[in-house]
Amino acid sequence: MISLAGGNPDLSGLPLEQLGATAARLIEEQGLEVLQYGAGSGIDPLREQLAAIMRRAGIEADPHDILITAGSQLGLELVTSLFCNPGDVILAESPTYVGAIGTFQGLEAEVRHIECDDDGLVPESLERAIAEARAEGRTVKLLYTIPNFTNPSGRTLTAERRASVAEICRAAGITVVEDDPYGLVRFDGEPVPAIRANNPEVIYLGSLSKIFSPGIRIGWVLAPKHVRDRLQLLCEATIIHASILSQHLALEYLRGDWERDLAASVDRYRERAHAMLEALPDAMPAGTTWTTPEGGFFVWIELPEGYSADAAFERAVDEGVIFVPGSGFLAHGNAPRSLRLSFSGETPERIREGVARLGRAIAATAGTEHAPGTE
Amino acid sequence: MISLAGGNPDLSGLPLEQLGATAARLIEEQGLEVLQYGAGSGIDPLREQLAAIMRRAGIEADPHDILITAGSQLGLELVTSLFCNPGDVILAESPTYVGAIGTFQGLEAEVRHIECDDDGLVPESLERAIAEARAEGRTVKLLYTIPNFTNPSGRTLTAERRASVAEICRAAGITVVEDDPYGLVRFDGEPVPAIRANNPEVIYLGSLSKIFSPGIRIGWVLAPKHVRDRLQLLCEATIIHASILSQHLALEYLRGDWERDLAASVDRYRERAHAMLEALPDAMPAGTTWTTPEGGFFVWIELPEGYSADAAFERAVDEGVIFVPGSGFLAHGNAPRSLRLSFSGETPERIREGVARLGRAIAATAGTEHAPGTE
Repeated sequence: MISLAGGNPDLSGLPLEQLGATAARLIEEQGLEVLQYGAGSGIDPLREQLAAIMRRAGIEADPHDILITAGSQLGLELVTSLFCNPGDVILAESPTYVGAIGTFQGLEAEVRHIECDDDGLVPESLERAIAEARAEGRTVKLLYTIPNFTNPSGRTLTAERRASVAEICRAAGITVVEDDPYGLVRFDGEPVPAIRANNPEVIYLGSLSKIFSPGIRIGWVLAPKHVRDRLQLLCEATIIHASILSQHLALEYLRGDWERDLAASVDRYRERAHAMLEALPDAMPAGTTWTTPEGGFFVWIELPEGYSADAAFERAVDEGVIFVPGSGFLAHGNAPRSLRLSFSGETPERIREGVARLGRAIAATAGTEHAPGTE
Repeated sequence: MISLAGGNPDLSGLPLEQLGATAARLIEEQGLEVLQYGAGSGIDPLREQLAAIMRRAGIEADPHDILITAGSQLGLELVTSLFCNPGDVILAESPTYVGAIGTFQGLEAEVRHIECDDDGLVPESLERAIAEARAEGRTVKLLYTIPNFTNPSGRTLTAERRASVAEICRAAGITVVEDDPYGLVRFDGEPVPAIRANNPEVIYLGSLSKIFSPGIRIGWVLAPKHVRDRLQLLCEATIIHASILSQHLALEYLRGDWERDLAASVDRYRERAHAMLEALPDAMPAGTTWTTPEGGFFVWIELPEGYSADAAFERAVDEGVIFVPGSGFLAHGNAPRSLRLSFSGETPERIREGVARLGRAIAATAGTEHAPGTE
């Protein structure tokens, strides 16, 4: 089975022997510290390393404004808990990260999607959504955005639009939550400064899951001090603190030559993305459109009328390839002709073969659009 | 400074060299697994080990009914989120774990305390609290109890009362949440089966923090299947899953001779508890009462009228000893003559010296009860 479904990072470039030796040394020499309870904020030297990582996105952060969390999913959960009451509206890209939708709906917020094009979310659509919600008497609390190579569409918000979006939200009194797990996983084009870089009121969520390891569960929140302090109290009530062993392992990794490993990973992702993008024209039905990511893990596909992504799913399994149908990335309604493909976890050869198989599965759904999965 | 304040376990008996070698081997040989995303439920072989641990408390658990969490604090947060709406009443021992009060109040539940004596929470007080809340039209959702060597009082609920408490809650339709981080840290007396042992509807929270390592953040929830499945969805929306590296490290530790390490730790805790209990009569003012824990980390002290635990705190710091004043362990009101002492983190010699210093600090507060801290 070729998986174009997952969102797992490729860890094959990690220096496992060296990391193992680091873990051994941490436990042998500092075991009474790394296996014991620690500070609710996270360990200070790691906060400094994370501040240094954010400088690459143009962010000048005080390490004291960073809260280390057990993955950035927890950061998102804490921010949502702090800001939102049941019934509040959260705006998000269309489509957006399924785990964010889950968190928002779990806290009984209503997710409303903002239209996106190849330059990311459309400011006019954002303004319209705010105006509409307010006309209905609803409270809009947050804009949730993944500006770099968003999951699932792979799109990137342009610098101009980042400024517009921040300005619109500032004027409307809406907090921007900038989720940036993929920012350093850029394989084409030029980096764009984070929204937070020019807008210190923005809450920024960072993660080591895509540049080091998701298994150790280390992410962080950068927020204005009064927000950060309240997030820490919530974090302590939720998990006390992130794993101290994980934090120290991450610290030692970031003190080493992680940029070399990341560059090699990014090279692999580039090859894989290009293999996918080159294979799509021959495999997909005429009229299919797809995004062209400059980083991250995902390509978003929209099939022409008459085809069905949902119906293609079972046929694809029979062909030996899996993907994620698009509907899960929307809070309501569905996207029966959309699908997410991931290129992060397979070799270029297998990606080419997977796309060919997928093309056959999709072709077989011609005419099934109105009766997906019923045959 | 002698600390009788903390609740940290003594990790000095851990085989750090062996644990370091285990961590190195896990990362070198299984790094692509232990550093990668994993299952939301936790890893299966660890669930089996945790089921085996619970058998010591008389619990026959299906490993599939276990959800591994990033510490049992998270288990408590998830259970509270699932069961409680704002304004619901949660019953808990008086006094109880400050971190539980924080979680409950953070989710806007009202904590009401149940009277306790040397046999743990008093069933008649539980029945009265339920009746009173219902007479006020309030909804009582949970009874939260730490039946073994509770934090902060060190008291243990007797077997007879465990049966009564379960029966009262069953009859009233109230879910019992049994938090048992200390159950295996028994140094005197005979083990009492968990409430869950005879009452499969009880939600049981377990933790490796006191028998292995708090720094790796591994706890678990055992719950009826329909509850467990919903807890897993909440857990995934909160942290995706607990650290995979931590889970594997815990698994390997539990596959080894952890019982030998635990027995040695328990021997140390016994020496320390006895040192404290033997030092108290000479040091405390006449009329002081304290609990006599058979396990865990804590002794709860109640001073006679005319003395002030709050006023003693600053004087104790001057004397070179710290403790936790009792008021933090109550949701409302205060306990100005109560204090929690921990014996888990200091040697018997330092405990004896700390108790003597504390006695001097307390003696100096005679007559200050009505004006704590104002002189």
